[in-house]
Amino acid sequence: MSDAQRVLERCDELAAVSAIAHGIERVHLSPEHAKVNELAAAWMTGTGMRTWRDQAGNQWGRLEGREPGLPALVLGSHLDTVTDAGRYDGMLGVLSAIEVARRLAPRAAGLPFALEVVAFSDEEGTRFSTALTGSSAVAGNWHEEWWDRADRDGVTVRQAAEAFGLDPARIGEAARRPDDLVGYLELHIEQGPQLEAAGRALGVVTSIAGARRFTGRVVGEARHAGGTPYPRRRDALVGAAEVVLAVERFAVELGGIATVGRLQAHPGGVNVVPGLVEFSLDVRAEHDEDRDALVERIHRHAESTCAARGLGFELTETHNAAGVTCDAGLAACVTAGIAATGDTAPPRLWSRAGHDAMAVAAVTPVAMLFVRCEDGVSHAPGERVTLEDVAAGLDAFEAAVLDVAARRS
Amino acid sequence: MSDAQRVLERCDELAAVSAIAHGIERVHLSPEHAKVNELAAAWMTGTGMRTWRDQAGNQWGRLEGREPGLPALVLGSHLDTVTDAGRYDGMLGVLSAIEVARRLAPRAAGLPFALEVVAFSDEEGTRFSTALTGSSAVAGNWHEEWWDRADRDGVTVRQAAEAFGLDPARIGEAARRPDDLVGYLELHIEQGPQLEAAGRALGVVTSIAGARRFTGRVVGEARHAGGTPYPRRRDALVGAAEVVLAVERFAVELGGIATVGRLQAHPGGVNVVPGLVEFSLDVRAEHDEDRDALVERIHRHAESTCAARGLGFELTETHNAAGVTCDAGLAACVTAGIAATGDTAPPRLWSRAGHDAMAVAAVTPVAMLFVRCEDGVSHAPGERVTLEDVAAGLDAFEAAVLDVAARRS
Repeated sequence: MSDAQRVLERCDELAAVSAIAHGIERVHLSPEHAKVNELAAAWMTGTGMRTWRDQAGNQWGRLEGREPGLPALVLGSHLDTVTDAGRYDGMLGVLSAIEVARRLAPRAAGLPFALEVVAFSDEEGTRFSTALTGSSAVAGNWHEEWWDRADRDGVTVRQAAEAFGLDPARIGEAARRPDDLVGYLELHIEQGPQLEAAGRALGVVTSIAGARRFTGRVVGEARHAGGTPYPRRRDALVGAAEVVLAVERFAVELGGIATVGRLQAHPGGVNVVPGLVEFSLDVRAEHDEDRDALVERIHRHAESTCAARGLGFELTETHNAAGVTCDAGLAACVTAGIAATGDTAPPRLWSRAGHDAMAVAAVTPVAMLFVRCEDGVSHAPGERVTLEDVAAGLDAFEAAVLDVAARRS
Repeated sequence: MSDAQRVLERCDELAAVSAIAHGIERVHLSPEHAKVNELAAAWMTGTGMRTWRDQAGNQWGRLEGREPGLPALVLGSHLDTVTDAGRYDGMLGVLSAIEVARRLAPRAAGLPFALEVVAFSDEEGTRFSTALTGSSAVAGNWHEEWWDRADRDGVTVRQAAEAFGLDPARIGEAARRPDDLVGYLELHIEQGPQLEAAGRALGVVTSIAGARRFTGRVVGEARHAGGTPYPRRRDALVGAAEVVLAVERFAVELGGIATVGRLQAHPGGVNVVPGLVEFSLDVRAEHDEDRDALVERIHRHAESTCAARGLGFELTETHNAAGVTCDAGLAACVTAGIAATGDTAPPRLWSRAGHDAMAVAAVTPVAMLFVRCEDGVSHAPGERVTLEDVAAGLDAFEAAVLDVAARRS
């Protein structure tokens, strides 16, 4: 079995650890999270790594370098998923990192750094409407208010963390010191169609767009669907529908990306005018100032549209990540790594999707390597990669690590 | 305590039987349904009625008239509710009927008919996306396909009925023969603002609009919210938003009433383009042909709008009630009943809301009496009636029954 085959088989093995019968859902601090951490730890141990789980639920492994206690070059990504997810977003990066560690383990004693692999716990934020909390904890940027975020069943992060065997009082121990780190490299599927359109297997990431996320509410009045004349209706769903259309229209006009991914009308009776709509809003752009302008325009328009219908409109920010520029030196190592596979001028892309690297950048330089995926599909069961691209990705990832080593030696 | 006070206190007692901690939800074949049937049966027994529960879960009581076995004049309404309901829609009619029976019991032996009260089991259709199944069974119009309707947990009507202690094979026994019935009278809150605007406590219903109900689906493709460029997005929620706005626009243009009461985007991830939206549609008009024209216009427009976005659109009918004209003779008795309270020319209204009387009309003449409610609010916790209006309603209801008796003697 080739290394790439092993990576893909392990992606399949992780995919089987799911909270839903048909499809993949694996959320923060769930039983499935514990199970995939155990699998990752076992695979790390298999490479000779020492392993541990930190107080944010992240799973780590470490190979010492040419002497014990050196600062670490960290390779990683995440193991949590969205609902009805694909099997590569996050997981391919973690398993590729473990595979690179397996390849380099025999030579680790010659490396000018320790080599670590991390499987982050909560990149997607599916369960608690958070995002990047695992990597934020590592960067020393845990937000105390996260403890009180609740899932749909009312279970808070604090309660879930305790049930998971973590000690909220010790969350600070998950933070890594800048002096103990050399940098962070993340391999990830592109989640977009640009590499495929360019006919290239791998790309170098120049920057990562920072998403802002919100929960929104349109507040009307629940009334009988038949008996209430139109002038008296305050239908929250009709107001929300105008907001959804405006979100798309403004994003296209301003060149950003804005998505209402979650929306539900309440109380939800077939014969009741909706009195409340709750929804999510995710806004991105290449530059943070363009993104913020898009948020502002959506917000102003939604307020006035809803007010004209006698509806309340509320928008609460749940996540705000600044865009991050990848470290030029580390990105050059990634470029060198890809060049070693034969593509001497790989495409340079900005990432429309957020990644743990964004949070890690607060504590150490970061760079990323994208792997082509079929038709740009991601966050859906149809995520696909080819064996050949994964093999190229492994070779480039390994070569990038060796390039970092060569530049430090 | 006055009779009207007793009715309102019993409304409060029923309101306490709820599946949700804050508010009222009481659905078909639930433990709460069993409990309110028991309460109603006890109150019926208290008037001297013989009581039974039929195979559709309806609760009945009967006082014999001047000889045993006479055809019955039936008074009633329903005890099931929408989610987060008010405490009068349905319940006021059942409790007023029991109170009228209590008043007339001493004189029942002089009546030219038996007097029956029925508490229907499933008017709203909240649990199984049905409607009027209890009264339809009484009219001999049970639909075999209803047995396989499932609630949100996958429990079918058949399973729920068996757990409730009913025998699906015996559903036909719930049907009443036309020869055994004199007619059906239903008292109900108006669920609209017209009586209040006219400054009148009571009104006579001329006809009941027949609703058509549908479940709809907009089918797109779930993809990563960041990575998917706009030309490649097939966002089911944006398509559904256009449909929601068209539903309102066409209803207003054509003079009907159309409501999307339930809508949810799937898979519901904050960072996932919605691949599927499921929603409900309820359409009414004074005349069935206008209603059907409205349905047709909404359907055609939604199909073409969704097709233009590369989205699928499906509309499945779940309920289709023909509008019903109230029986002129029985309505004259209701008018006479109201006249006996002092309003000699009470307002005549058509009902925008559906009622059990629509289903019962298939087996016996029906008429209805509306009681004013505050601000027209219904299907919401803010349903309000006044003690004075309930007292007037009881007097008119009793007088209407006596008027039916006088005309048959």
